[in-house]
Amino acid sequence: MNIARFRAEGRVRYGVVEGDSVTDILGSPFQGEVRMSSRSRRLAEVALLPVTSPSQVFGGVGVNYRDHLAQAQESSDIPFSNVGIQPFPKSNASLTGSGSPIVLTPEAGAVHYEGELVVVIGRRARRVSWECALDYVLGYTCGNDITEKSIWEKDYSDWRSKGLPTWGPVGPWIATHLEPGNLDVTVRLNGLVEHRFNTGDMIHDVASIVSYNSQYTTLFPGDLIFTGTSGSTRAMKPGDVVEVEISGIGTLKNPVSMEKV
Amino acid sequence: MNIARFRAEGRVRYGVVEGDSVTDILGSPFQGEVRMSSRSRRLAEVALLPVTSPSQVFGGVGVNYRDHLAQAQESSDIPFSNVGIQPFPKSNASLTGSGSPIVLTPEAGAVHYEGELVVVIGRRARRVSWECALDYVLGYTCGNDITEKSIWEKDYSDWRSKGLPTWGPVGPWIATHLEPGNLDVTVRLNGLVEHRFNTGDMIHDVASIVSYNSQYTTLFPGDLIFTGTSGSTRAMKPGDVVEVEISGIGTLKNPVSMEKV
Repeated sequence: MNIARFRAEGRVRYGVVEGDSVTDILGSPFQGEVRMSSRSRRLAEVALLPVTSPSQVFGGVGVNYRDHLAQAQESSDIPFSNVGIQPFPKSNASLTGSGSPIVLTPEAGAVHYEGELVVVIGRRARRVSWECALDYVLGYTCGNDITEKSIWEKDYSDWRSKGLPTWGPVGPWIATHLEPGNLDVTVRLNGLVEHRFNTGDMIHDVASIVSYNSQYTTLFPGDLIFTGTSGSTRAMKPGDVVEVEISGIGTLKNPVSMEKV
Repeated sequence: MNIARFRAEGRVRYGVVEGDSVTDILGSPFQGEVRMSSRSRRLAEVALLPVTSPSQVFGGVGVNYRDHLAQAQESSDIPFSNVGIQPFPKSNASLTGSGSPIVLTPEAGAVHYEGELVVVIGRRARRVSWECALDYVLGYTCGNDITEKSIWEKDYSDWRSKGLPTWGPVGPWIATHLEPGNLDVTVRLNGLVEHRFNTGDMIHDVASIVSYNSQYTTLFPGDLIFTGTSGSTRAMKPGDVVEVEISGIGTLKNPVSMEKV
């Protein structure tokens, strides 16, 4: 089932996506079985929003694919061996939906896309085991963990380099009933494939990340965890269009623009 | 005017506090003039919530009073000279209201209170000058920037050491029409005064903090900025009661408990 969050008739709603239509659900997707109303709309007529309004957004893992380690090392003047699961925060204000622009800012240096699988927490999780961790997941979506490289190189602050408004596209919707261990992730810049990888190559799998995060803090329904990108990423410029497609989910597509000062 | 956010009859509401009663407002406190409805309640009958549901919570300043620098230096094995205005994030999930417990966790080492003035942003602020910065502030509240010292000493991660649920009490309400430059802050532990200081002794004043944050990112209505504590703080234990009182605002009061595992 694909659950979208969108704005229609001035209100924020959740709905189930089937083909090119979306049907409002009754109540919240986080409370028991999802029940559909009789109200359907054409998907093209609604504005997709970030898939949840979370209490917390985690960059779950700095380096979670071996082939991203080389690039991380290049931009660090200290030995970069952090392939741990240490959670770091991404600003809630960075979230934006599929179709909305990623807005660059004149002060920023190179701003890179990072296509990633994003975990959507379904229920309160505290100290859950690896074995049970996926029971706390509602589903998965595509994420673009936009990262400004010069800030990161200067003070290693993930939060500062990844936290600006629109720098956290997530969408297009939440795919439930999906196994996260063997999904193809394709990143395209202006229609051309930049990178392909499979979530089976994660250093820390999704269950490990959820379990680890739940030892450290409490995870709440709607919380989002980015799971890391693979390979080498590139800078974007205004006018570009970035897509992150994940098998079984769909495509997160965002145009790139420049902030008007 | 004192604007509280509270839960009553199963709904989250904003209301104006006068004496021991609170009157619902019509619409949002962030959209133009605040208008009161005819619905009043006794303050004692409502559950106070965090004063806003923000898009972002900033620990605006690591050290903003000279007499807190000594303690910061003690717990750092690198020269601690950061008295800059660098914003750092505090988890939205840490927020809790006045009257609700601060919940310690068994894994934590010493967990300190830090009484602070907290700025409540009133409207979207981007690249605002020092001169205009206070025009973007809705008001002020009391905050307790709970900090676990051993995590901070280990990895200097403000986010990890300050981000657990209930570790960000803010309240009891937002005081509008207040000048922030000469407010007395009193911190009490179990009724005894631990520390008194005045916001006039800030290294970076409120206008500087708001202006600086707005150069770095965009501030949204409801965003909260903690402005730093003064003096030496102490660890709390279950059963304690911590109060942060600020002249012209009121008293934020929270009991301390231990997480049940």
